[in-house]
Amino acid sequence: MADDMADPPAPNTAEVTLTICTTCKREGVDPESTRPGTLLLSALSEATLPDGVTVRGVECLSACKRGCAMVLTGGDTRWSYIYGDLDPEAHVDDILAGAAAYAATTDGLVPWRERPQVFRKQSIARIPPITFPCKDETP
Amino acid sequence: MADDMADPPAPNTAEVTLTICTTCKREGVDPESTRPGTLLLSALSEATLPDGVTVRGVECLSACKRGCAMVLTGGDTRWSYIYGDLDPEAHVDDILAGAAAYAATTDGLVPWRERPQVFRKQSIARIPPITFPCKDETP
Repeated sequence: MADDMADPPAPNTAEVTLTICTTCKREGVDPESTRPGTLLLSALSEATLPDGVTVRGVECLSACKRGCAMVLTGGDTRWSYIYGDLDPEAHVDDILAGAAAYAATTDGLVPWRERPQVFRKQSIARIPPITFPCKDETP
Repeated sequence: MADDMADPPAPNTAEVTLTICTTCKREGVDPESTRPGTLLLSALSEATLPDGVTVRGVECLSACKRGCAMVLTGGDTRWSYIYGDLDPEAHVDDILAGAAAYAATTDGLVPWRERPQVFRKQSIARIPPITFPCKDETP
């Protein structure tokens, strides 16, 4: 290794979690049928999850207008993301690819072009890690 | 104390943080003027914050359609909340009252009627603590 090359950062081994809202409805889907989030949770639970990624359900993420919704978190030093308008039939592959790319980062920030379409287009919000050095912290 | 009364839970001393997006625009506000989040961060920084509450700015919460936006977090065992459509002139008192009520909880769940109007009406999403025992975790 050349002397002027910095060592790569240590990998972030904090567990990555996909938290799926199992109760929200989805526009155009019969509200009496099994909720899309329940279907998505089942599909992800049956899939081969990327290393270091787990999935769990929760009964409400209060993002009901953007159902079905999901949160991606990864410990105290990664940004967290909330995604909405998810389709349990169409989006499983994108979610798995996006979670794998996220799990490979130290800070949760996947380069834009490497994010799957769902993660680029359907983000509701992101939350910085509590350790993030913020501008204007003491204005 | 009567024998059948349970001891109250120990207070949650984890620091509560208001993270304000300083860059997002707000509908109806001149985009060339100082951004609403920058004004809100200044107003909160000049206010008397509730015990255990701090405030910080961040350059983007990716909630641009609901600007100005803010995140309320409080350690590993409290739910986190994202609020939007905030008005730096009208909402400071509600934000301070809501943060105080949140800081007084162990889990971040303030009873609905005790939440100020902004927290009841302008929630974008909420995120469960990583420790939250989720239903359907292993469906």
